[in-house]
Amino acid sequence: MMATSGGSPPFPRFDFSAGGSLMSASNSDHWRPRRVAIVGPGLLGGSFALALKRWHPAVQILGYARRGETVSAALDAGVLDAGGDSLVDACRDCDLICVATPVDVLPAQVIEAAQVCAPEALVTDVGSTKASIVAAIERDPAAGRVFVGSHPIAGGEKSGPEHARADLFDGRTVVVTPGERSDPERLVQTCALWRHLGAGAVLTTTPTEHDHLLAATSHLPHLVAAALAALLPEAAEPFVGPGWRSTTRVAGGSAEMWSAICRDNGPAIVAQLDQMSAQLDLLRAAIASGEAGPLVAMLERARANRLRAGGA
Amino acid sequence: MMATSGGSPPFPRFDFSAGGSLMSASNSDHWRPRRVAIVGPGLLGGSFALALKRWHPAVQILGYARRGETVSAALDAGVLDAGGDSLVDACRDCDLICVATPVDVLPAQVIEAAQVCAPEALVTDVGSTKASIVAAIERDPAAGRVFVGSHPIAGGEKSGPEHARADLFDGRTVVVTPGERSDPERLVQTCALWRHLGAGAVLTTTPTEHDHLLAATSHLPHLVAAALAALLPEAAEPFVGPGWRSTTRVAGGSAEMWSAICRDNGPAIVAQLDQMSAQLDLLRAAIASGEAGPLVAMLERARANRLRAGGA
Repeated sequence: MMATSGGSPPFPRFDFSAGGSLMSASNSDHWRPRRVAIVGPGLLGGSFALALKRWHPAVQILGYARRGETVSAALDAGVLDAGGDSLVDACRDCDLICVATPVDVLPAQVIEAAQVCAPEALVTDVGSTKASIVAAIERDPAAGRVFVGSHPIAGGEKSGPEHARADLFDGRTVVVTPGERSDPERLVQTCALWRHLGAGAVLTTTPTEHDHLLAATSHLPHLVAAALAALLPEAAEPFVGPGWRSTTRVAGGSAEMWSAICRDNGPAIVAQLDQMSAQLDLLRAAIASGEAGPLVAMLERARANRLRAGGA
Repeated sequence: MMATSGGSPPFPRFDFSAGGSLMSASNSDHWRPRRVAIVGPGLLGGSFALALKRWHPAVQILGYARRGETVSAALDAGVLDAGGDSLVDACRDCDLICVATPVDVLPAQVIEAAQVCAPEALVTDVGSTKASIVAAIERDPAAGRVFVGSHPIAGGEKSGPEHARADLFDGRTVVVTPGERSDPERLVQTCALWRHLGAGAVLTTTPTEHDHLLAATSHLPHLVAAALAALLPEAAEPFVGPGWRSTTRVAGGSAEMWSAICRDNGPAIVAQLDQMSAQLDLLRAAIASGEAGPLVAMLERARANRLRAGGA
């Protein structure tokens, strides 16, 4: 049974369906963070901060980034209230920490943050891969206790706090990926938090399931878009139109960030690339044959999937 | 030297750079069609009609479609002034005809239209392929004399006259593809016309060059988007986000129309598919190796191409 109160915010309320079997949702529903740190206040970390302030204006948000200019830009954009000189400085005594850095540096930062945060703190992230991150963090008992992994399926090819938006997560899907050592109360709290930040659906999977699913829905499309963009002959540039632009849009994203994702989720991505190559071989054979039947059938299946999964 | 007049419309003026060597642009610049036929008043044909009315409100626009419901929908959408019972009925005595049907039926319709149009008529099209269309039309002397091929790089995955828009071509690139028998005056007239309909750039190529360039910028991206959409496992649908949606957007287009394009431009598309497969193999090897260097380099090249060709 969910607790209700007259002072609840104008956002979708917590409805994590498995919550009843874990605990009453009432604690999480009334929880408000007091002092928050964003490690890596870029597009996603900055949007996390702005969405948090929209829900809970009284919160104090500190931030840390390896590059001092990122913190300055985040302060200029109104994303942070203050910057820390170090990760430890920013995270000390915080009761909510979001680590929004590239996936190859993220686990060590969560472990460092876990040593100085408030005892009751929740630490989460926005990383695009989960299995190796959660495994690395759970090897540290203190970090494994406070951390629950998250992946909001939102973002864009423009990075930096100057592009952060309070509504970036509105209506989006967020995947929350508890590990073997995750604290059930913090899991419920994490799901509730994303609802407060605007998420349209909060789904839970294991970290490994997440990585297999996202290899198909995000990592493969990114690589395919990048391959298309890399192939464009210079002479063809003036002949590019809206189709090429939308198909390659995500290839405008950070090469460093995506390289880290690909290396982290290598085997699942390689399996997806093999499926894609096989699918292109089938298309090639259908076109080379000159027969309409097999080609129309494949394009119809693609169209039906696109309309069902992607909306009109 | 271009003629100017106080009554010129508020659109970019004709600036086809090769025009001077063909003829003075002044005739084309003052030309206004009187009676127009749209064969296939769908998204593109309907938008051609609406853009034409925006430029020249007094024009009378007739239309013909194989399916009677298309003509009814076009009349309801205000795209056409009247429908014809047959192609010949709609095109008789017209001085401008746009054939906007799938590329496999288009040439025969141009040849039929050329037999009944006004002697001074211009006949053009909006087909996504050009070499076989122009060759087939030029085998008919009457059609070869009045026809100049066009391909506006605009459109969308939604078809039908109800989605037609007067601004569909605004700022877009249009490729005009004269054949060996094309009338130079009609070529200049076609380029000027597209400017009046809102085009941002009007480029001329041979039909064969067009097909090779568009295989890279349009046909390959379409097939890659379709392959991605066809591969999506049902279990992964809830995990789809904005990246998958934009990468696969064009796969929502008509399977019949795209099948006809692929068969028409088969060899150029097969060559592009082979390049794409080779590029994916390189990506696969870079990811499987676990080394960051080659992967970052490839993603950086993709990003640079995307930003240069696609805008921010």
